[in-house]
Amino acid sequence: MAPQLDSFFKQVDAMSESFIDRLSKAVAIPSVSAMDEHRPDVFKMGEFMASELRNLGAEVTLHPLGKQPHKEHLELPPVVTARYGSDPSKRTVLVYGHYDVQPALMEDGWATKPFKLTVDESSGRMYGRGSTDDKGPVLGWLNAIEAHKKAGVEFPVNLLMCFEGMEEYGSEGLDEFIMREAKGFFKDADAVCISDNYWLGTEKPCLTYGLRGCNYYSLEVTGPGADLHSGVFGGTAHEPMTDLVRIMSSLVDPDGKILIDGIDEMVAPITDQEKALYKDIAFTMDNLYESLGSKTALFDDKARTLMGRWRFPSLSLHGIEGAFSAPGAKTVIPAKVIGKFSIRTVPDMESEAVTAAVQKHVDKVFAGLKSKNKCTLKLQHDGKWWVASPNHWNFTAAAKAVEHVWGVKPDLTREGGSIPVTLTFEEATGKNVLLLPMGSSTDGAHSINEKLDRRNYIEGIKLLGAYLHYVAEEPMREG
Amino acid sequence: MAPQLDSFFKQVDAMSESFIDRLSKAVAIPSVSAMDEHRPDVFKMGEFMASELRNLGAEVTLHPLGKQPHKEHLELPPVVTARYGSDPSKRTVLVYGHYDVQPALMEDGWATKPFKLTVDESSGRMYGRGSTDDKGPVLGWLNAIEAHKKAGVEFPVNLLMCFEGMEEYGSEGLDEFIMREAKGFFKDADAVCISDNYWLGTEKPCLTYGLRGCNYYSLEVTGPGADLHSGVFGGTAHEPMTDLVRIMSSLVDPDGKILIDGIDEMVAPITDQEKALYKDIAFTMDNLYESLGSKTALFDDKARTLMGRWRFPSLSLHGIEGAFSAPGAKTVIPAKVIGKFSIRTVPDMESEAVTAAVQKHVDKVFAGLKSKNKCTLKLQHDGKWWVASPNHWNFTAAAKAVEHVWGVKPDLTREGGSIPVTLTFEEATGKNVLLLPMGSSTDGAHSINEKLDRRNYIEGIKLLGAYLHYVAEEPMREG
Repeated sequence: MAPQLDSFFKQVDAMSESFIDRLSKAVAIPSVSAMDEHRPDVFKMGEFMASELRNLGAEVTLHPLGKQPHKEHLELPPVVTARYGSDPSKRTVLVYGHYDVQPALMEDGWATKPFKLTVDESSGRMYGRGSTDDKGPVLGWLNAIEAHKKAGVEFPVNLLMCFEGMEEYGSEGLDEFIMREAKGFFKDADAVCISDNYWLGTEKPCLTYGLRGCNYYSLEVTGPGADLHSGVFGGTAHEPMTDLVRIMSSLVDPDGKILIDGIDEMVAPITDQEKALYKDIAFTMDNLYESLGSKTALFDDKARTLMGRWRFPSLSLHGIEGAFSAPGAKTVIPAKVIGKFSIRTVPDMESEAVTAAVQKHVDKVFAGLKSKNKCTLKLQHDGKWWVASPNHWNFTAAAKAVEHVWGVKPDLTREGGSIPVTLTFEEATGKNVLLLPMGSSTDGAHSINEKLDRRNYIEGIKLLGAYLHYVAEEPMREG
Repeated sequence: MAPQLDSFFKQVDAMSESFIDRLSKAVAIPSVSAMDEHRPDVFKMGEFMASELRNLGAEVTLHPLGKQPHKEHLELPPVVTARYGSDPSKRTVLVYGHYDVQPALMEDGWATKPFKLTVDESSGRMYGRGSTDDKGPVLGWLNAIEAHKKAGVEFPVNLLMCFEGMEEYGSEGLDEFIMREAKGFFKDADAVCISDNYWLGTEKPCLTYGLRGCNYYSLEVTGPGADLHSGVFGGTAHEPMTDLVRIMSSLVDPDGKILIDGIDEMVAPITDQEKALYKDIAFTMDNLYESLGSKTALFDDKARTLMGRWRFPSLSLHGIEGAFSAPGAKTVIPAKVIGKFSIRTVPDMESEAVTAAVQKHVDKVFAGLKSKNKCTLKLQHDGKWWVASPNHWNFTAAAKAVEHVWGVKPDLTREGGSIPVTLTFEEATGKNVLLLPMGSSTDGAHSINEKLDRRNYIEGIKLLGAYLHYVAEEPMREG
């Protein structure tokens, strides 16, 4: 029979303002892992997590990870682990999240200060960098614990928490840590739950059983010893920018087709069973248009769009470091430019094979340019794709919790984003991993005006708690 | 017979430290005209010029130019004019320079603070933004006046000075001002001299009688309403960056050949007489390699290289605004990206015809992409090419001054950079315009570690003064 959750739910509603206040405190710490100057803030955010957890009575440990590879002047932020409960008669659930965020500058076009949580009472939207990715969901677990304590409801499971501070910069050092602790801190885990992705639309929750991977590359072209005046040297020297945009433009066509030989052949073929899945998913092209904020979609039909997002690779050009990027006009020939691009990977693409194909393509194209400049490709970081079994008790428990809280059966979805740690946890624990999203498709993670809806935050806290109760009594089925 | 310059020269040598101190004060003012936040510094630099000139006894006027076109929130910095002497029995020489500078950030890779003049005693190099472009030469005129006063040497001409603060951002508002004052402040001018370019090499001075023009374009591609997460949206939407690099890569090939239909046809053919000129010019490929700081030259021979710099158009890709340009990794799909590029123009290219050809090319290429994004081309600013007669008495006087100060006959050269005002002064005054450079080819204007050699600064002050003495007694020849 369904667990009794009413008093827990009432408590969450009663405490909602203090939960929003906790999120405000977290958003106010600009824990941007990709920018050197913000590294102290990432540490500060780790300390904040630790002290909040200690106040809830959890056993907290901060695990240093040493120096950052390729950036030896920087210390990696600690992994914060916490155990709440150790009753051998209860199941043990391991949850993961990250307390670092993407870069955010007012100049990028934010309507509100990115590091101040701004609640729009009319829409219920709570704007701020990290609100939905991933501080809201991370604090969701803490809020669920606090609501149980305050309501006097027994916590249904032993909870193992693992929060990192480098997710937005390739989770440097985390895999080694998880493998080290596989038979240590993580050994009791019966199942794993990660809340770091999004609903497909804005109304219907989903459970996610697959993710794309991501290979992030930088492509450096150098020539002159220093930047040059284009009037004095234009027409006499090979210009690195000319070579770089040539190579970047050769990687992908405007329809999103990757032009690197060998990539297509690595992609697993579509089965009829898979084809059938897409039609029932609660997703419309209008959902996409709303999230895009435009109608500039590659495809006009739902199934092909979902496939483009879930099960086909994609290549995005993110920008160029070292060139003139400010407003205005500067007549400079940049001496050293670094193009940034990434490839989202899917079954059965292997990172090494992908990088080999990219290197071969870049070498071929650059050789064809007959330029005297130098060109170097670097894999900045990579994370493998992941696909799990949605029939496992971990998923069926979560499905019941969704139905209890939201009154609908969740869609079973895959996701376009990559959370490399998902795979690492699966391999380290040998247990099933579930992705249980809190935010919706319009939250705009990684973009300006990132937000989390008040409703998704508060009901999401109930969902995380309810999920633990259903996990506690779900019949074991490996699926 | 040659004018007596010894006491003037001695005075310059005696005052050299105070002249360097004057340059330090000027470099310390970051008068970057292209960056809104530095606009107050540009005004401050204008005030500095005015007060220095007043102290020398010149009649100074600051001419406001009103609001900046397309940036109505900004006031244009004033044109600073000054008259020194008004003896009807003397010739009147008009000199021009600019007191604004290119952007410069420590992060760009400067070895010293860009806005602090740093003198390397061993090499005599004086590093700092604006040292050679154009604060050193501009102050050269003031120093020449002061040395004459202190030495008690009669000033040989009436000097009209015109210093602007927007040269590095297209000299907004200046043309209109010059045309307004053609029959006003500028009406007495018998000849014009501008010191805002560079020697071809490092040892031999030159007189410059030709310049390329410059058409600066921005190319904006927009799609989504805001930046997107490449994991969530990669493979489902048209990405502005993909379109933009495609168009940018279609403009010029890695050998510097412009790929825009119709441009080649606009370029004046090479005459045998012109061909003959190049062999005598004191310029070697090693001069180029030293200035480049590399051997990444497009051509291996001197003549073709000089033609590439002087008499053929070139197209440079400067950078992209709106994309990810910081170090590190950001998995963003930028929603709005603006590519910046410029075309150096030569006889007989007309700006309107060039822009029409660029627009036609961009429209054709973008249409071929079949993208749902929007693409807009904008001409940010343009300046026409210029060619003068090197046989005019203005040039022959300058040639004698060079020989007096440096002991060599100067090369007669053209230049790759554009100084649009040169043409405007020619049209407004109907007089011959001479370009008399102070700095050398390794000064690195517009790049990091911009410098002016102490020797070029001090001997350059002597040259500017000597030029005025030779102008005073040169027989009139329109050449």
